[in-house]
Amino acid sequence: MKGHVKALLFAAFLLAGGGCFFLGRSMAQSEYAKERDLNIQINRSELDGLGTIEGPIYVTGHKSPDADTVGCSIGYAALLQKMGYDARPVVLGPVNHETKYILEAAGVDTPELLEDASGCNMILVDHSEYAQSASGLADAHILSIIDHHGDGSVTTGKPLVYDAKPLGSAATIVWIRYRNYGFEPDQKTAMVMMGAILSDTKNLQSDSTTLADREALKALRTIAGVSDTDAFYQEMFRASLSYDGMTDEEIFFNDYKEYEAGGRHYAIGCIEVYDETDAKNMAERMKPIVPASLKTTGMDMAFAQVSVYHDGISVNYIVPSDDTAEEVLETAFGEKAVSDGTSYILKPGVSRRKVLVPAITDVLEAHPKE
Amino acid sequence: MKGHVKALLFAAFLLAGGGCFFLGRSMAQSEYAKERDLNIQINRSELDGLGTIEGPIYVTGHKSPDADTVGCSIGYAALLQKMGYDARPVVLGPVNHETKYILEAAGVDTPELLEDASGCNMILVDHSEYAQSASGLADAHILSIIDHHGDGSVTTGKPLVYDAKPLGSAATIVWIRYRNYGFEPDQKTAMVMMGAILSDTKNLQSDSTTLADREALKALRTIAGVSDTDAFYQEMFRASLSYDGMTDEEIFFNDYKEYEAGGRHYAIGCIEVYDETDAKNMAERMKPIVPASLKTTGMDMAFAQVSVYHDGISVNYIVPSDDTAEEVLETAFGEKAVSDGTSYILKPGVSRRKVLVPAITDVLEAHPKE
Repeated sequence: MKGHVKALLFAAFLLAGGGCFFLGRSMAQSEYAKERDLNIQINRSELDGLGTIEGPIYVTGHKSPDADTVGCSIGYAALLQKMGYDARPVVLGPVNHETKYILEAAGVDTPELLEDASGCNMILVDHSEYAQSASGLADAHILSIIDHHGDGSVTTGKPLVYDAKPLGSAATIVWIRYRNYGFEPDQKTAMVMMGAILSDTKNLQSDSTTLADREALKALRTIAGVSDTDAFYQEMFRASLSYDGMTDEEIFFNDYKEYEAGGRHYAIGCIEVYDETDAKNMAERMKPIVPASLKTTGMDMAFAQVSVYHDGISVNYIVPSDDTAEEVLETAFGEKAVSDGTSYILKPGVSRRKVLVPAITDVLEAHPKE
Repeated sequence: MKGHVKALLFAAFLLAGGGCFFLGRSMAQSEYAKERDLNIQINRSELDGLGTIEGPIYVTGHKSPDADTVGCSIGYAALLQKMGYDARPVVLGPVNHETKYILEAAGVDTPELLEDASGCNMILVDHSEYAQSASGLADAHILSIIDHHGDGSVTTGKPLVYDAKPLGSAATIVWIRYRNYGFEPDQKTAMVMMGAILSDTKNLQSDSTTLADREALKALRTIAGVSDTDAFYQEMFRASLSYDGMTDEEIFFNDYKEYEAGGRHYAIGCIEVYDETDAKNMAERMKPIVPASLKTTGMDMAFAQVSVYHDGISVNYIVPSDDTAEEVLETAFGEKAVSDGTSYILKPGVSRRKVLVPAITDVLEAHPKE
């Protein structure tokens, strides 16, 4: 059955009220309270089925920890702590800039690093692949998996709580678990979970966003005391594009690739920034770096591609290494590329892989090295 | 933390009411109703995340379908039907006698056989191993897994609803999903789910039984209109030991194994029955079968081991093929085995693998064939 037909049928069904147990029935207050308490007890009792747990329980997200994976670890460990478990959030490496921003805004410490999961009680959040998880996981006791991806390679000998839902953010699943267990996260935890949802749903704009994600964000921002989540998201996003603590040279080589065409070698370093002001500043910083790079790399020419893709703005500021590189860009893009003395500006911006490299390659192959 | 310490802490925590969101807060009736409707909407919205589903959805349990696997398939397909999905329970082979009894008692048809899952929309219940599932499953679109075992070999490319809980019966998970989605099964479906829980928890007596299983059974038996679940369970159990439709010879060879010791070949056929009356009847039926079996099998001697393990009664009625087999039993068990003319009766009963075979082997090796 197609989704929309199904949705229509379902709506009609709800309106008719037929067969619908809870929504259609009128209940006294005491009945509501009783049923709710029973629901909570039943939902919680799945943890009893895990049996006796000796030692701490480590709650970990995937490698290269991002906002959702860290938000889930902190949020789910806190929920288990409320129920008396010795649960501890951990990470598998340094958190990214966006996550760092969220943790600092919430006043929450970065979770400790887990070096090896061998012999540990583990809960996996936001992943279910061994390759993405802690070393030693095959020798760990996996109690639970909370995820919004497909079912991955991880297998367990013992029964577990596996709660995967195809929602926009795994942190939304953690929030649903709070509700179904009858708890509410504290203010700091709510802010970290809010940041996780904003990040993974791109401020509720991604295709994968569901009603549950929207409701979770609404509830969590209230607890977190954040009135303007749009502004919070923009700051998170700006932080995600931060190159704090990196030299200009490190920034150029951060997402750097080399190519060959018409007997010449060239390279492009990509840098994503928040807005056009940041782009102009970054282009200025790259101006001495790009030509200097040729000496260490042995390339014939190089380009820094400083890009903005944000809020409907799509633009590249392309910094060439020298006159030859300038000529190549002019031949490749003609009037489409406007020079401001430092960069050639392309609006809308182009993909390195799909447009920039093929265009430069075409020019170099049309004018091969003699 | 040890389970009982954890449980105590948790109980203390509940009594103190600290930090507990739902249980401790007093709410008006309208607030309860609002929160409940929101919970239901949020819990249901995970299905939206599965996207557009074209064609029917097959809900299947494991191979050699038993009461829990079939009860889950029927129960979960019915829940999805209530929400407008074209969901259909299927089985992967003939159902066992116990399941047949439950389906007949409930007046529910046996689900249709699924030959091949290739290209189908599939929901797996009560298993997550390819080896236990439908052929062609690797080429199917797995939408959901509802299970109470460990996380098995099945993997999915796309996000899914994976709901595994370590409860006594997978049908209890289906019942929790009814509650969390705000629905109630109809009378017939409730009876099938009730039978599933009784079977997998052995009438709530198995170690894996949780609060959720007990609550599920309580709620389902009310909807099913079954006042005496103990009697229902005894009938299910008796049906599970039924050899209806099998000849006496087929019964003897149903769980039959051959051994060699001291230069002699011997065989033991095991038959489990409900009580001692059934055991005596079965022993009488086996009396001509056991000696006759020697002609077709070429064994030197054979035994039918008719056993009762039920309600604290543990007894074997062992039917020997001939005088030599009688002597072997007398030598092996001495006064412990009492003959009634047809069988040698052993109280308590013994395991074929752990006691009977080693005892017979010892006798034969002490008196090897010349």
